[in-house]
Amino acid sequence: MLRVNTLLAVFTVLLVSPLIAQQPSVFDDDPMQHLPIGTEFSEYVIRSPTGLENVVERVEPMNWWVDMVAPRVEILVYARNVADYDRALVSYPGVAVEYVRRLANPNYLFVGLHIAPGTLPGSFPIQLGTRDLAQVTSGETRTDKTQKTIEYRLDAHPRTTWTDRQPLSSRDLIYLIMPDRFANGDPTNDKIYAATDTLVNRDKFLFRHGGDLQGVIDHLDYLEDLGVTALWLNPVLENDQPYASYHGYAVSDHYRIDPRLGTNAQYKELVNLAHARGIKVVMDVIFNHCGDQHYQIRDIPSADWIHQWPTYTKSNFRAATIFDPYASEIDKRQMLDGWFDNHMPDLNQENEHLANYLINNSIWWTLYSGQDAFRVDTYTYPDTKFMANWNRRLREEIPHVGIFGETWVNQIGVQAWFVGGDKLSQAIDTKLPAVTDFQTYFAIHEAIAEEPSWTGGVTRLYYTLSQDYLYPDPSKNVIFLDNHDISRLYTTFAGDLTKMKSAMALLLTLRGTPSIYYGTEALLEGSGGAFGEGGRVDFPGGFPGDDTDLFSDTNRNGAQREYFNYVRALANYRKNSEALTVGELTQFVPRDGVYVYFRRAGSETVMIILNGNSSARTLADLSDYVKITGGFTKGKELGNSEAAVQLTDIRLAPKQARVFILEH
Amino acid sequence: MLRVNTLLAVFTVLLVSPLIAQQPSVFDDDPMQHLPIGTEFSEYVIRSPTGLENVVERVEPMNWWVDMVAPRVEILVYARNVADYDRALVSYPGVAVEYVRRLANPNYLFVGLHIAPGTLPGSFPIQLGTRDLAQVTSGETRTDKTQKTIEYRLDAHPRTTWTDRQPLSSRDLIYLIMPDRFANGDPTNDKIYAATDTLVNRDKFLFRHGGDLQGVIDHLDYLEDLGVTALWLNPVLENDQPYASYHGYAVSDHYRIDPRLGTNAQYKELVNLAHARGIKVVMDVIFNHCGDQHYQIRDIPSADWIHQWPTYTKSNFRAATIFDPYASEIDKRQMLDGWFDNHMPDLNQENEHLANYLINNSIWWTLYSGQDAFRVDTYTYPDTKFMANWNRRLREEIPHVGIFGETWVNQIGVQAWFVGGDKLSQAIDTKLPAVTDFQTYFAIHEAIAEEPSWTGGVTRLYYTLSQDYLYPDPSKNVIFLDNHDISRLYTTFAGDLTKMKSAMALLLTLRGTPSIYYGTEALLEGSGGAFGEGGRVDFPGGFPGDDTDLFSDTNRNGAQREYFNYVRALANYRKNSEALTVGELTQFVPRDGVYVYFRRAGSETVMIILNGNSSARTLADLSDYVKITGGFTKGKELGNSEAAVQLTDIRLAPKQARVFILEH
Repeated sequence: MLRVNTLLAVFTVLLVSPLIAQQPSVFDDDPMQHLPIGTEFSEYVIRSPTGLENVVERVEPMNWWVDMVAPRVEILVYARNVADYDRALVSYPGVAVEYVRRLANPNYLFVGLHIAPGTLPGSFPIQLGTRDLAQVTSGETRTDKTQKTIEYRLDAHPRTTWTDRQPLSSRDLIYLIMPDRFANGDPTNDKIYAATDTLVNRDKFLFRHGGDLQGVIDHLDYLEDLGVTALWLNPVLENDQPYASYHGYAVSDHYRIDPRLGTNAQYKELVNLAHARGIKVVMDVIFNHCGDQHYQIRDIPSADWIHQWPTYTKSNFRAATIFDPYASEIDKRQMLDGWFDNHMPDLNQENEHLANYLINNSIWWTLYSGQDAFRVDTYTYPDTKFMANWNRRLREEIPHVGIFGETWVNQIGVQAWFVGGDKLSQAIDTKLPAVTDFQTYFAIHEAIAEEPSWTGGVTRLYYTLSQDYLYPDPSKNVIFLDNHDISRLYTTFAGDLTKMKSAMALLLTLRGTPSIYYGTEALLEGSGGAFGEGGRVDFPGGFPGDDTDLFSDTNRNGAQREYFNYVRALANYRKNSEALTVGELTQFVPRDGVYVYFRRAGSETVMIILNGNSSARTLADLSDYVKITGGFTKGKELGNSEAAVQLTDIRLAPKQARVFILEH
Repeated sequence: MLRVNTLLAVFTVLLVSPLIAQQPSVFDDDPMQHLPIGTEFSEYVIRSPTGLENVVERVEPMNWWVDMVAPRVEILVYARNVADYDRALVSYPGVAVEYVRRLANPNYLFVGLHIAPGTLPGSFPIQLGTRDLAQVTSGETRTDKTQKTIEYRLDAHPRTTWTDRQPLSSRDLIYLIMPDRFANGDPTNDKIYAATDTLVNRDKFLFRHGGDLQGVIDHLDYLEDLGVTALWLNPVLENDQPYASYHGYAVSDHYRIDPRLGTNAQYKELVNLAHARGIKVVMDVIFNHCGDQHYQIRDIPSADWIHQWPTYTKSNFRAATIFDPYASEIDKRQMLDGWFDNHMPDLNQENEHLANYLINNSIWWTLYSGQDAFRVDTYTYPDTKFMANWNRRLREEIPHVGIFGETWVNQIGVQAWFVGGDKLSQAIDTKLPAVTDFQTYFAIHEAIAEEPSWTGGVTRLYYTLSQDYLYPDPSKNVIFLDNHDISRLYTTFAGDLTKMKSAMALLLTLRGTPSIYYGTEALLEGSGGAFGEGGRVDFPGGFPGDDTDLFSDTNRNGAQREYFNYVRALANYRKNSEALTVGELTQFVPRDGVYVYFRRAGSETVMIILNGNSSARTLADLSDYVKITGGFTKGKELGNSEAAVQLTDIRLAPKQARVFILEH
């Protein structure tokens, strides 16, 4: 297993791997090598909608559903010179063509269908043709050389299967998996041919490692046992990109699970198997950009499909420009329209056909697979109005859908602006219900890493939560200790188990929906890298030939066992605890660097005590807390198998958090 | 003049002063000595409303006005056993007694008068008596041994003098003066007898130094020349306290200017003389506490007039408890009801008679003196609903009144909550229009003191302003570089004139109402002390026998002259500049640590450039700013007498800010 202190050291070890010598033609000796030798890095080019000659035909979405809330769908047809047609005909009861539109590229056509309420599921042809088609009598079909026929299908709405759906909420515990790095359940898909990406090589940190959906399916037992109730998978859609495609954020096909991860059917199967265990599935989606190998980028529908700059222009990554009353136009434009990276063109969601495409894609995956929620990547970067509209449409069609947006920003006022509900009188109601709560992440880390001061250390956590009045419902915020973009918890705290337990105790008892990064419970480590990717290490035991298997208790060393059992104990208690999931939170100003808060629901009272000091403390006097602790005499400590302790002399090691279920 | 590096050094010099030897009986040899030898520090006691025997009678407010918006006033009568009377009689057209109320203390009576619209100004007796008085025919007066007569007067409303009043706004430049430390214009009031405080001694930092209102009046020329348009005086009401009374925050008489500072009439004269020069006057008021020598504390009206604790209990100074959705009751109580200091009892504004008293006192001073605005000390500590009501009543009676509250807090979300207008959906609309903007203070200092980073240094200033969306009108915020509670600018930046100029350039060009602490323009220095009082040094030249006079150009050394002239140039340009006072602000994300913003109004465009780096920079390429700078070719630099420079090669020294008025 990987148990060294820095990613650099990992790479040094990998350098001596015999595999490298076997593939000298495509691999150099750098584990952070981006792409095979001989492959070119993306170079920025201005893209013109001239129309490629050889195209693989597409109709997207491939199908739709009857009985939708909005009775309309726009179908994108991609075929050589399909824009020569300017009429579409459908003869199916309840279905009418509302419009046919083309953009500059002759290979794209957009067909707007109206699907009346009560329309029956079924298949029908959509006939594309030229102007004289309009004169054909309705119900009659005619074929001639100027026509093209598309078979289309309307499925029965899956609403009846939604009756017992619970939305993703603070009752859940999310587990974030990078599918390529978690477990390789199906080695047969490791070398599947794709246009640009055929390489699986675990010695190269930025190449694919072979993990897949089957690997996730194979470990649902493990996840259920740990106490997980929701899986957030980093993007699973096709990333047929020549380099660093493993992370999934450069989508090249919006309607296809990446074949190295599995198939669309397998994704649907994963959702069903997870549901059978009470585990929800969260899809990670990106609206800001896609991969430059996407067919819509290689053969761009219109010049304004993406934001094109005279020369390559990065985003300034300053989300504040969106609400800053003093923002300059150039800064705001660069934030929204600048590119995230040079192989990920910046999508222009102000193009209404692209907007329809992206919204329909999200609806399609939810209805197709039965998935429960979305994590929206780079939430602050797409057009703000588009995102508000996407939120509105998704929740309109799927009332139980969970949504949280990535807001990797600093300062509470910056983060809170992106949460909708008009609590802050935003210029635009973003309609976003929840965010990845980086402010709480920063505060938890500061509470544990730094000494208490008037505003710092543990006091910062106190102040961060006190400003929750800025959110319409802060319990919806997704909180976390680490993720795929930042240092792993183990590495941050240099393997200090007390600090790691304290962080986990906070995560699983504070308000919000907690999210655990895969392998944090197994003491995986890693940090650094140009994009913070250093923690994206393989889960030991998930890959053929691994010399240890940390999915199994027998292979854990003492520290691994201690931490896994601690996480498991808290997660499983929390799973059935009203207090820790939806209970009232009461916090106290830290006293002598000791931070105390309670979660309460009904007769259940949980007391959490964090010693923010680097020296031990004893909490002997509970008089300040007596309004809550009065009547209780003992506390059963979570994650500690010993008997309940008297509430008279609670000893806290340096930086230790203890969680007590109060008893009479 | 005082030009040493630390306050401690000042005190070391003072130790050898011959004055000390002259008064051995009351002074020890510590310049930070709090109180005369033989005097006791306040000790906390529980106060009972038993009623003192020897009282000096009072009627407060001493007079009122006709034609007020609210046709009611409550009069507090303080006299031995006055609560024996339970009836009051007034025979004056338009005036009716609405109620007579007593509290536990027999020496207090509260008389509610109704003053009908159209009532004429004039004087009349209020007859207090016992129950049978009610049977006296209206209009008839009767005197017997059970009666007490109070002469009362209703003045003509000063509304007609308000016609040209402009409210305190971002068009103003405030100058903050600690009256005891600015100038001693009347040595005859230095040794005025008071019950506990008779000591003036400039060798003792915490004793009175002799400055007074006449000293301020004497230097209105200086202030007008500097460009000041508003004076904020630290509290001027009587502080007859045995120690550290010089600062004024322990009021012992709400209706009397401290006799060591002057008289009520002299305060009114100061307001008039200031107005004649276009200078407004801001009164500093405290509702959280008063001095323990106040007659209402020595002879407390009711046990709940102040917050009494079993033992002395300080505030926790955590303003966040007020809005924290998770705050514990004990923390919130301690914040609001704990004492600021042990000689300053914590007033209970939930007592309606105290609330009336405080509100009427503020109205009284405004109508009596003609003053323009209020700075509310310790704004976050009094009862939040009371403060909202105070704001409402003051603005109802005096529409042009300016109000800003002291919010010495950290984090924007904490500060912004206290600004009213329901922008943040507060549980209570605080109705406060403006705050002392500590967040901008912290940000300006960080911008100049620290190196630029992703979120720090100059970037913090950028992010702080970007979150102005949280305020209903951020231009009302009072911004500052130093004040009476924090380190002086000179000391903070160790006398670095470039940094001091940069800070002043920001202060006088950013949004908000700028406030200069007296003597900052003269390079006064000082910091530290238990309460941050170390900067409250005497203005050289303000006191008899001073060996230098920094009010006069001839006495300034090179650095003092350079800085004074810089401040004066910017302040006087700003005074008549629409752009810098009310113009549109446009800011740019810092580029390479260089922060650029513009203020614009009509044809006036001012460009401010701050090099946040500790190394020099040249701004050669203005292309990012061309939407604003396009059409301009030159810039006339404020505070620089040289000719306008071309906008092609702007050199910036390390940490230098430059302010250019753009020209064609």
